Amino acid sequence: MHVREFDESDWPQVWGIIREVVEAGDTFTYDPAMTEAQARPLWVEAPPGRTVVAAEGDRILGTAKMGANRPGPGAHVSTASFMVAADARGEGVGTALFGYAVEWARGEGYAGMQFNAVVDTNRTAVELYLRNGFQIIGTVPGAFAHPTLGRVGLHVMYLEFWPLPMQE
Amino acid sequence: MHVREFDESDWPQVWGIIREVVEAGDTFTYDPAMTEAQARPLWVEAPPGRTVVAAEGDRILGTAKMGANRPGPGAHVSTASFMVAADARGEGVGTALFGYAVEWARGEGYAGMQFNAVVDTNRTAVELYLRNGFQIIGTVPGAFAHPTLGRVGLHVMYLEFWPLPMQE
Repeated sequence: MHVREFDESDWPQVWGIIREVVEAGDTFTYDPAMTEAQARPLWVEAPPGRTVVAAEGDRILGTAKMGANRPGPGAHVSTASFMVAADARGEGVGTALFGYAVEWARGEGYAGMQFNAVVDTNRTAVELYLRNGFQIIGTVPGAFAHPTLGRVGLHVMYLEFWPLPMQE
Repeated sequence: MHVREFDESDWPQVWGIIREVVEAGDTFTYDPAMTEAQARPLWVEAPPGRTVVAAEGDRILGTAKMGANRPGPGAHVSTASFMVAADARGEGVGTALFGYAVEWARGEGYAGMQFNAVVDTNRTAVELYLRNGFQIIGTVPGAFAHPTLGRVGLHVMYLEFWPLPMQE
């Protein structure tokens, strides 16, 4: 399995993963009724952002997008989002995508990476981020309507990139 | 001065305020080079969101937009943004817009209101929100590049609407 840049021909499989994740409704604050046409510009980032896939041969196991968290005076902080196909979980796909995104953002010279809305019951994600130096800045109580657990919290998480990469 | 719904004919004055606030670059994470065509869909909310103005006769003193903070499983939490013309500050315009937005969101049945990126040096705004029951959920350090103060923090702020408005 390796992580590489998204290619046009990946879209059908990437859309399949997005649809699956969004319909499950337990990790993303995306509209579960989102159409393919709406998903496309939301997930496929224009430069200087980037969208990637985790692929094993012709099969796409997961996907990530990354770029500036906010425009203008917030554009020095990056963000990223990750989705893994349901039948490819527990195999390190999310970890590989996450590692790629953090390295990419460091390389691009961002000051840090912020996640704006991490569902607090999404233990796999929260623990991966904490293990890799992210801190929970705070939790908005009840801000996520989980399909089986009711209203749960949304963490804001942040990793400051320090020391800064060498400037040449 | 009264707060009322945005009307098409308000746009030239509203755009003047947006341009002024965005070019100052000390309160909003908007691109300072944002064009009028880009600003329009960003600020003028389609229903069920709402955009309003604070008007005194024909003169627009400030403007606000409000709606769901996130789609899908996050859509029960509201958000709002406020801008006041530079030459109309200190006259309660921001307070009036803020009060309108909170009452609107309560009336629409939202569970609370979240501000995602309040510049921590924007004391007028932070103090207004705190005075009215908002709490600082957390602060992302250095996430805002202030034009004179350097990198300052961005607060995530939240007000839970409790008790819930009566349902009839």
